[in-house]
Amino acid sequence: MDIMQSSLEKHREWGGKIEVVSRTPINDRDALSHAYTPGVAQPCLEIEKDPALSYTLTRRHNLVAVITDGTAVLGLGDIGPLAAMPVMEGKCALFKEFADVDAFPICVDSKDTDTIVETIANIALSFGGINLEDIAAPRCFEIEARLKERLDIPVFHDDQHGTAIVVAAALTNACKCAGKSLDSLEVVINGAGSAGIAIAKHLLSMGVGNIIMVDLPGILADDVTYDNPAHNEIAARTNRDRRHGTLADAVKGADVFIGVSKPGLLTQEMIGTMAERPLVFAMANPTPEIMPDLAKAAGAYIVGTGRSDFPNQINNVVAFPGVFKGALAVRARDINEAMKVAATKAIAACVSDDRLTPDFILPDAFDRSVSLAVAKAVAQAAIDSGVAGLEVSPL
Amino acid sequence: MDIMQSSLEKHREWGGKIEVVSRTPINDRDALSHAYTPGVAQPCLEIEKDPALSYTLTRRHNLVAVITDGTAVLGLGDIGPLAAMPVMEGKCALFKEFADVDAFPICVDSKDTDTIVETIANIALSFGGINLEDIAAPRCFEIEARLKERLDIPVFHDDQHGTAIVVAAALTNACKCAGKSLDSLEVVINGAGSAGIAIAKHLLSMGVGNIIMVDLPGILADDVTYDNPAHNEIAARTNRDRRHGTLADAVKGADVFIGVSKPGLLTQEMIGTMAERPLVFAMANPTPEIMPDLAKAAGAYIVGTGRSDFPNQINNVVAFPGVFKGALAVRARDINEAMKVAATKAIAACVSDDRLTPDFILPDAFDRSVSLAVAKAVAQAAIDSGVAGLEVSPL
Repeated sequence: MDIMQSSLEKHREWGGKIEVVSRTPINDRDALSHAYTPGVAQPCLEIEKDPALSYTLTRRHNLVAVITDGTAVLGLGDIGPLAAMPVMEGKCALFKEFADVDAFPICVDSKDTDTIVETIANIALSFGGINLEDIAAPRCFEIEARLKERLDIPVFHDDQHGTAIVVAAALTNACKCAGKSLDSLEVVINGAGSAGIAIAKHLLSMGVGNIIMVDLPGILADDVTYDNPAHNEIAARTNRDRRHGTLADAVKGADVFIGVSKPGLLTQEMIGTMAERPLVFAMANPTPEIMPDLAKAAGAYIVGTGRSDFPNQINNVVAFPGVFKGALAVRARDINEAMKVAATKAIAACVSDDRLTPDFILPDAFDRSVSLAVAKAVAQAAIDSGVAGLEVSPL
Repeated sequence: MDIMQSSLEKHREWGGKIEVVSRTPINDRDALSHAYTPGVAQPCLEIEKDPALSYTLTRRHNLVAVITDGTAVLGLGDIGPLAAMPVMEGKCALFKEFADVDAFPICVDSKDTDTIVETIANIALSFGGINLEDIAAPRCFEIEARLKERLDIPVFHDDQHGTAIVVAAALTNACKCAGKSLDSLEVVINGAGSAGIAIAKHLLSMGVGNIIMVDLPGILADDVTYDNPAHNEIAARTNRDRRHGTLADAVKGADVFIGVSKPGLLTQEMIGTMAERPLVFAMANPTPEIMPDLAKAAGAYIVGTGRSDFPNQINNVVAFPGVFKGALAVRARDINEAMKVAATKAIAACVSDDRLTPDFILPDAFDRSVSLAVAKAVAQAAIDSGVAGLEVSPL
């Protein structure tokens, strides 16, 4: 039986991948009068006096909303909010299993940016953080930007920033293996959608030397005006030699290929034109831009994909649980660039020098120590960058 | 230490009364690829083809949103959405503890009816039912009516209908004890707010003979025009002898006093003017309209209050968990009057004739068989009244 069929059967069996449970038994009048009336009036009154107490007297301190509009679900596209729910529940299960963070799935039944922003803002007090998920570009940029501006809890579009963090961690360790340094690196990113652009921005803030973005119009350059405003914006910050051409032109002499695009777009010939010890992260799902064996045969020094059946799986699950755990721990008002850089470095540091090899550049997804290491680093970065509500991290 | 102080300490200890857990461990690649990518794509595609499968492939079949705007919280009033959360979490814990129904608290940060309706409608696909809670009148009427009209999942304002169901169940059994019949009963309801009006409407559909509503203007009569449209509406359906006057006038010769008003409003003298074997439900919280010992001394045959430290606590907890469990079990599109009547009768029937006494007219709140009995009756009533999505109840 293939994985699709067996997953469907398991979903029927589970009847939902998450469940809301009571943290205290309510079996007698004493318990009822503490958890509910009349005793519950007291925490209510305390929060009314001091709203910050919502973090100690309710579950808010550990609670993330996983919110989608169902427009860009996995590789499936715009399948709608209801059909997106199995992914959202799965994400919530991962939050709990990997970092003991409570997460609850919400699907918003609208494709209108204003409506989505208003709806999320209206319910945001119920949560300690907002994880946006599987929302199509370019809407996702505006939704995230407006919510970050408006809310004083962290808002994080995982498809952008979670991916960027893990790619940057993989690249950090791959460079260490290959004897390359981030500041002199030339990186080609194929696919200037939300993930590609987020990766580019994050690599720039990690100090990567030069980035060349490639999308349907070819190499993005700042002397061309694109229909997509996000392309113009990122073109202004990348491609410092103002090159033009195709993907094949872009990868000539490049150190790194990062694919967030489509199967088969990177050829062995292209890898042959890259710099010495080329690094290839081919993350198209489920079929990468080039299969790992072909990439290796063409000279790729390190290959990573999105798949669990090859070495170096570039998987957000090493990032988002710890990022939110850290942000929540210090009641951060934001997840800012400093916190993302801290997360990246923490993930990279989870692979010690003696274990680092071209086939092992990222910590194992099931290593439960990763989320805590990431959380500690993120919490400290939140404090250091002035966005934390607590002065000392409890982690 | 008083209950308020000890409840506050317990709330600090708990750090939230509910928690979101994973229903399946995710400890290896096989588990990850079933619960998340790539396997999760299959249930998504199935739901896209047939939206009804959201009830078997996600948690929706057992999931209620407990939603407030924080404007009428317990007896505390308009304390705001954030301060209302301890009550909402408590309610969610009760749903799980009493009926194994998952419930999740949402506070809406708005007092605007349109905004509240839109916000709830926009996230409704995430849930199998909506329990509205602690929303001030008259806004609560319109919010509930518009959501019921718009959504095809059950919407239920517990402060209205849960209260009405339990009061009606108590009255059913009190009448049996006292040798009175519902159809010849004269009932005075003091307090024509959302609970009082819902009680009146529900007692009418239970076949109660005559009801007299009393509020600040005195007895409500249909030859007077009130500022509050809800008062005009209920006046047209009650007080068939078109009486006028004060509460003292209303209770003369009445069989039943139901108080959802303020402490101390019912006097011993008033009880002295009631019919033989008067029934007194004095539910003002925390101090009833008259204390039970005083009511009994004045001749009340049966006394009920909202308090757990006196006999006959009239507590919604015997109603709402089973009502939603039953509605969810058959995927009801609504919770209609037939289902509320079924719930009322099921609760009353939980006290067998041989156990029924003037001091024991309602089942014990902690009798876990109650919610299942209520759920079975509600599910069958949903099927019989044509609002169920399933033809046979699985309960």
